[in-house]
Amino acid sequence: MAAKTSLSGFPEWLPAERIVEQRVLDILRRTFELHGFAPLETRSVEPVRELERKGETSKEIYLLSRLQDRGGHDAKADKSIGLHFDLTVPFARYIGENAGSLHFPFRRYQIQKVWRGERPQEGRFREFYQADIDVVGAGELAFHHEVEVPLVMAQALAALPIPPVQMHVNNRKIVQGMCEALGIEQVDDALRSIDKLDKIGQSGVLEEMTQHGIDSAQGERLLQLAQIHGGLEVLEQVRALGLSHPLLDEGLEELEALLQAAEKHAPGVVIADLKITRGLDYYTGSVYETFLRGHEDLGSICSGGRYDSLVTVGKRTYPGVGMSIGVSRLISRILGADMARASREVPSCVLVAVTNESERDDANEVAYALRERGIPTEVSPSSSKFGKQIRYADRRGIPYVWFTDEQGGHSVKDIRSGEQVDANPQTWQPPQADRWPSWEL
Amino acid sequence: MAAKTSLSGFPEWLPAERIVEQRVLDILRRTFELHGFAPLETRSVEPVRELERKGETSKEIYLLSRLQDRGGHDAKADKSIGLHFDLTVPFARYIGENAGSLHFPFRRYQIQKVWRGERPQEGRFREFYQADIDVVGAGELAFHHEVEVPLVMAQALAALPIPPVQMHVNNRKIVQGMCEALGIEQVDDALRSIDKLDKIGQSGVLEEMTQHGIDSAQGERLLQLAQIHGGLEVLEQVRALGLSHPLLDEGLEELEALLQAAEKHAPGVVIADLKITRGLDYYTGSVYETFLRGHEDLGSICSGGRYDSLVTVGKRTYPGVGMSIGVSRLISRILGADMARASREVPSCVLVAVTNESERDDANEVAYALRERGIPTEVSPSSSKFGKQIRYADRRGIPYVWFTDEQGGHSVKDIRSGEQVDANPQTWQPPQADRWPSWEL
Repeated sequence: MAAKTSLSGFPEWLPAERIVEQRVLDILRRTFELHGFAPLETRSVEPVRELERKGETSKEIYLLSRLQDRGGHDAKADKSIGLHFDLTVPFARYIGENAGSLHFPFRRYQIQKVWRGERPQEGRFREFYQADIDVVGAGELAFHHEVEVPLVMAQALAALPIPPVQMHVNNRKIVQGMCEALGIEQVDDALRSIDKLDKIGQSGVLEEMTQHGIDSAQGERLLQLAQIHGGLEVLEQVRALGLSHPLLDEGLEELEALLQAAEKHAPGVVIADLKITRGLDYYTGSVYETFLRGHEDLGSICSGGRYDSLVTVGKRTYPGVGMSIGVSRLISRILGADMARASREVPSCVLVAVTNESERDDANEVAYALRERGIPTEVSPSSSKFGKQIRYADRRGIPYVWFTDEQGGHSVKDIRSGEQVDANPQTWQPPQADRWPSWEL
Repeated sequence: MAAKTSLSGFPEWLPAERIVEQRVLDILRRTFELHGFAPLETRSVEPVRELERKGETSKEIYLLSRLQDRGGHDAKADKSIGLHFDLTVPFARYIGENAGSLHFPFRRYQIQKVWRGERPQEGRFREFYQADIDVVGAGELAFHHEVEVPLVMAQALAALPIPPVQMHVNNRKIVQGMCEALGIEQVDDALRSIDKLDKIGQSGVLEEMTQHGIDSAQGERLLQLAQIHGGLEVLEQVRALGLSHPLLDEGLEELEALLQAAEKHAPGVVIADLKITRGLDYYTGSVYETFLRGHEDLGSICSGGRYDSLVTVGKRTYPGVGMSIGVSRLISRILGADMARASREVPSCVLVAVTNESERDDANEVAYALRERGIPTEVSPSSSKFGKQIRYADRRGIPYVWFTDEQGGHSVKDIRSGEQVDANPQTWQPPQADRWPSWEL
């Protein structure tokens, strides 16, 4: 059962659920760190002018004002600050400010909460965790990072208690090259229309493109492209459209390299999907969207792409490639669909029973000795009957209860099996699987 | 060198600094979990009416409003939400809402950012981490938790790369009992005045008390009490003041139990300090403040106490005891005073060199094999000359560079010592101390 949410869109979990969330966050962190991504955290607030640079969601920005300033007007617009709505804008700002202290290519991950004042609905939160990785170069960034980043994410997602994912990839250069070859000048409009294919259908996309001055013959060709999806065979299908342009060829080569590497390192995960363009203007190469099999209704759970001019300091640009996981949405589904459950609701592996209050400190000594060896332990809060103390453990899922008899002899009981054995606080070890809460799948 | 802070009061760290911060947070988490405290996280926002219940800092609350609602008035006051300024108010609200789904006594820790719109100054941030533990009972809570909580915090602080701490403890019942014995009715006023002793001095405290109708003879006696501090001998000193009241006696017994336990489990850490009262109204028993030796200018880095009526649901109260560490202030000092430094600025233990781009995937294979065995590894972003690749590792503090020769033979070089040895990607192990970034003290 989820914790009650008295503010719609701001989820909270019960302790056992939080243990699942924490485990998910730990797995993401560990995967990113194993791949050499440095931890980074940016402040939660940004100047509003910084947040508004990335226009689309600006209406959803939460502005901050101090209670003491109330009654008067809001702070002047140029001094306004708001909560960040993603981790890309703050990262770009951070790079801009600290470029001189960082080493490039700079690889970082960032796992933080973000806020969006949108209308709450299932799986859409106003406060939620995102987990991002990016690799950013100074002036240039090799293409192979566009292969690396989705493979890191594929590995991270594969380690979570979720069904397999399907990662849809494309390369903006292909669509852009097609546009150039077709003589379409409204490339951004075309990209944005294609991005809506699943939402508004073929006729809707054609209509939109017509409105932007793309004639229907051109539009039809782009639609043919947008419908191509699959494995390495898509390369031939695109070439069979009979168009040629250096950018198109470059895009196809890059897509091929990505598909080949993915087939080797994450077989079955990545497919080409030529309609994926990502709405955001700043992508310039590979783009990615990821869907959870059987849970496509969640929308993309992990998206991103290559960008070339998101960060500019003076004359220098910092091209990068990154992806972002919408973690809270995923955790909400993991919990809601019972994909994983914590084996207990407390970290404690052992409850040390207390025979009577005057001997509480003996129980403390046992607990200190166990913790010293990394065994999470708590001492019974009361010296009530053992049956009641065992119930205390049982309710929380604590697997072991420790007893000290009048002669100072120690024993430990596995309250699941009822088995009780003599034990020494200096040497006893629980089975590895019992030491910390695990998840049951 | 710290990251540039373009918004005053909102600190950000460079990657190597963030590694130190992360390590501090990890140690706190592990200590709390070893003691059986369950992880909890509450949303960052609360209804303003909830935040205002705890009056003192209400002027510092950051209110939220959506950009799209701008121009019009703020949302109505009863619907206003703001960022939490501590973790106690949200925890009390959470308990109230979820009491039916929790098991009591409920032990939780919470490590989250909080926001206060105060004037930024050294060590005072507008956005900072707090780390809290609390034990809360339903209807009642045994005194021994008032001994347990400061000992957990003492253990957590002892595990950090900081000088020893001095924890000052008192018991509100002593001051309150004294007031009763002296016939002082303005107990809260007296408590608040005594709390300011270090700030406004004896005459200031007396003056304040007089203003509240406490006569100077009474005030003098309270001041005598407030000046008592030290070890177990303070109990006699208090009794020598010649006053008697059941509450005073109870407070002295509790203080004695706390001092005795502390002397055993955290020798030298805890002293009685009868002037400590904590300003907040809701404390009813033990109170705690903690100072870092040699860094007393930081103020208390870890405070808290026993409370009895912070959480009430219907007729039921949920008494508790908790303490809170001001983590960011501590980390800022750790970094600023160079108490700890990360051994490198990236997680990577190994950089796999790339001989030429056509063999990049061989390097990837090596990296995958190392990561599989939990060794953080990145692949060189370029296939430039080895000297340049070694420099890439050196700049970031990555200790090992992996080479594959033309015959497929593998070797790994410790670039600190220059020693290079043959190695197998399936079996090679770095020394344990090199596997993850450590800190140098």
